[in-house]
Amino acid sequence: MNALGRHLLLELKDCNREVLNDLSFLKAVLTEAASEAGATVLGESFHQFNPHGVSGVVIIAESHLFIHTWPECGYAAVDIFTCGNSVKPEKAAQKLIRELGAKNHTVLEIQRGILDTP
Amino acid sequence: MNALGRHLLLELKDCNREVLNDLSFLKAVLTEAASEAGATVLGESFHQFNPHGVSGVVIIAESHLFIHTWPECGYAAVDIFTCGNSVKPEKAAQKLIRELGAKNHTVLEIQRGILDTP
Repeated sequence: MNALGRHLLLELKDCNREVLNDLSFLKAVLTEAASEAGATVLGESFHQFNPHGVSGVVIIAESHLFIHTWPECGYAAVDIFTCGNSVKPEKAAQKLIRELGAKNHTVLEIQRGILDTP
Repeated sequence: MNALGRHLLLELKDCNREVLNDLSFLKAVLTEAASEAGATVLGESFHQFNPHGVSGVVIIAESHLFIHTWPECGYAAVDIFTCGNSVKPEKAAQKLIRELGAKNHTVLEIQRGILDTP
């Protein structure tokens, strides 16, 4: 199977609700997770919602990491999309599960860009 | 089923290779797709890769749209993640399939944030 990218979809439940609403913390954790996975960070963009919730993306040379949080539900949706063999998205996933204090989580991996080889 | 968000994953194949490498075009199309779906655009970030390929995100109040292109393969990966009932992600998907000239495509929908109701 010849896939261009790996896409991990994390469902993080029963998280630490306080950190889910902390933009600075989430920005630092997502950026560190990208670096620890071996990715090259190109930029980021984060937004704080009122009354609660944060959305943020870290764009990496190898694709992106995204987070959306619902502190009132203790829930965060995280995407880790990478291409190439040098990045280890599992490392980023494990860091995020740990740092957000998720008591329950699932990780779904989807192969992106499965192309017919000529 | 009580889901916080809808996540459409588009695999766009056999696209117009020229537009897949056109950052300005892709930025305009992704932003217009968000607006036509009824979303509120908060910001965007796009990167051109050398020798080819574009990555870009449009952050909306209702989550995000993302695109990664591989012009050399005629392929684009697109994510449309929305929450709430007022946004119609299918509208954005149809526009992107059309504007990128995808001769083959698949759309996978994943419900995000399916939480136990107390």
